[in-house]
Amino acid sequence: MTPEQQARHMDRALTLAARGAGAVSPNPMVGAVIVAADGETVLGEGWHRAYGGPHAEVWAVRDADERASVSGSMASGADLTDATIVVTLEPCSHFGKTPPCADLIVARGFRRVIVAHEDPFPEVAGRGIARIREAGADVTVGVRETEARRLNEAFLTHVRTGRPLVTLKWALTLDGQVATASGDSRWITSPQARALVHRWRAEADAVLVGAGTARTDDPSLTVRDWPLAEGQTQPLRIVLDRTGSLASDLKLFTDAHASRTVAVTAPAATPAYADALRARGGTVLTAPEADGHLDLGAVLDMLGSGEGLARRVQSVLVEPGPGLAAAFLRQRLTDRLFAFVAPKLAGVGIGIAGALDVERMADALTFFESAWETVGLDVLLRGYFHAP
Amino acid sequence: MTPEQQARHMDRALTLAARGAGAVSPNPMVGAVIVAADGETVLGEGWHRAYGGPHAEVWAVRDADERASVSGSMASGADLTDATIVVTLEPCSHFGKTPPCADLIVARGFRRVIVAHEDPFPEVAGRGIARIREAGADVTVGVRETEARRLNEAFLTHVRTGRPLVTLKWALTLDGQVATASGDSRWITSPQARALVHRWRAEADAVLVGAGTARTDDPSLTVRDWPLAEGQTQPLRIVLDRTGSLASDLKLFTDAHASRTVAVTAPAATPAYADALRARGGTVLTAPEADGHLDLGAVLDMLGSGEGLARRVQSVLVEPGPGLAAAFLRQRLTDRLFAFVAPKLAGVGIGIAGALDVERMADALTFFESAWETVGLDVLLRGYFHAP
Repeated sequence: MTPEQQARHMDRALTLAARGAGAVSPNPMVGAVIVAADGETVLGEGWHRAYGGPHAEVWAVRDADERASVSGSMASGADLTDATIVVTLEPCSHFGKTPPCADLIVARGFRRVIVAHEDPFPEVAGRGIARIREAGADVTVGVRETEARRLNEAFLTHVRTGRPLVTLKWALTLDGQVATASGDSRWITSPQARALVHRWRAEADAVLVGAGTARTDDPSLTVRDWPLAEGQTQPLRIVLDRTGSLASDLKLFTDAHASRTVAVTAPAATPAYADALRARGGTVLTAPEADGHLDLGAVLDMLGSGEGLARRVQSVLVEPGPGLAAAFLRQRLTDRLFAFVAPKLAGVGIGIAGALDVERMADALTFFESAWETVGLDVLLRGYFHAP
Repeated sequence: MTPEQQARHMDRALTLAARGAGAVSPNPMVGAVIVAADGETVLGEGWHRAYGGPHAEVWAVRDADERASVSGSMASGADLTDATIVVTLEPCSHFGKTPPCADLIVARGFRRVIVAHEDPFPEVAGRGIARIREAGADVTVGVRETEARRLNEAFLTHVRTGRPLVTLKWALTLDGQVATASGDSRWITSPQARALVHRWRAEADAVLVGAGTARTDDPSLTVRDWPLAEGQTQPLRIVLDRTGSLASDLKLFTDAHASRTVAVTAPAATPAYADALRARGGTVLTAPEADGHLDLGAVLDMLGSGEGLARRVQSVLVEPGPGLAAAFLRQRLTDRLFAFVAPKLAGVGIGIAGALDVERMADALTFFESAWETVGLDVLLRGYFHAP
């Protein structure tokens, strides 16, 4: 298979993998394409569809078997001994919710395996590739590695740091305001941009806001303008309420999704909403303080560990007001910033910039990489603070 | 000629016209293409190159004559009696610096004339088209009219209102700052964006700043990062200094281009720099006040009339600080806003938004039309507040 063919099939596998967005966490998204010896003909495709379900390799082999049986050429299963399987992540080597994919690949006799990158998950970490190589198949690693790492940035960040991937998002007017002087912010962006934010919510394990936003906007933080996958739950709704002084009648504490709400307070706080929220299935966590604020690093550690939660949080979409945005940026706790700018002018109102201790413009915070795209009438910067 | 051919030749004529940017003011930019009877073959091209020089039609006819003489088919001049001339603006009908182009078109016997739009200049205003039609040629008006009007927006705005076209430009960080808290703004944007600003300066009759910018940045406001056309002068440098209190040693008052500086003060002001600036060939104008500021509408009237200046100002590039930006926007004196956003974060510093009396986000100022483009690492919005 030529490098061009390898890249093309891997792109297809990445596209398939992305279909699992929002449905597979805490597993990574994975896609697989089985290619015949000619390097062109696709024999089967698959992707990891839901947490706990079969892996991408299993679906791809099943698809190949089905196609073979439909075409009548095989009574039971396709002959894959001359085939190549192109997978976006190293095949697993351990018994988790499902048997090891490396064993399946060996059992079906694939001649060649092409992988975007190694799985850093401690129970895999090269052992899947080693298992396949030992069995005599040729393994190539590193095709479209950057793209594959960006796709699974949440999974990889969590494995590496124990913390969730932190994405900050905001929307400003062309003159740099998140709200008018009266505090009104509905709406800055076009409907297309707002739908995209709901998509990001759907693809995140949790959405996080500060007490100021909760108090001022009384937001729902639910996914409404983007379809949830079958069986997919709403993301956790995390509200940082250090003093525990938020009103008990906020939507986050009382609506139909209250079981998905996690309030984080300082140890000394006695929030009035605590008992009622717990009765609705919600959660109240306490986190340490630092410099008169909740210690954000400690909060991320808690979320990443899953302590007190139904499961680990691998990705958080932060929808900050000015204070929280600056805190995440100043403490270098942000992995990505997704920022909209809308072609409208609000005049002096509320900005998003907080204290970043930048004295000279030459010392402004910049991105490791960034790209602009238009969304409706607006423009979106996707900025990454580090390599994937 | 098919409508598609008409549009294609007009696009070419518009491209030619744009070559005159910065060199033809106060004349409009005009381009012309002479097309053979087959609707495809281009016989000649021309554009208005410099103020006072021959018009686009004259250059196009000369080009056609030259090509005919080179090809040897004609001893003296091309036969254009079956040809069409495609012009971005109605041919003139009056003796200005040059004889009427309508007469030239009639004299050369063109069968057909295609024009983007009528010339609203009072001495033309349809008379060129009428003259050509009377002589028996077929005239089509309205091909690529919007594009042609945008190209000559400065000329058209000045004819319509007596004021220059006002373009506001600014550059913000992604968190909405024009400078850090210490006032440092070098540099927000990438070199490509800064070169584009110099191009806009070169294409404007004047650049305008407020006293705050003059005092804080001591700018040159000259064209440096963009080549001036042969014989093209630096744009006028207008500084609004109501109280006349700017320091005498600013670059605007003392550098090699001081003759291009126009300081505008209130009648009661007695600026210390006045005599020295006049001695260097510069200008001090007085303008009325309104609400404790210079009356910006009156300033634009003065600039448009050319009162006290070597010539009328048809276009002004305003490089405002926060106060001046808001004043131009609030008073609806802005025709276009060109705004850069750079992918960097400065933290709380100096914003650009001023008082616009926008209470609800739904009442934010929006554009008649706008478009985003990337420039280097930055993004640029070109926003137009009204139709061309």
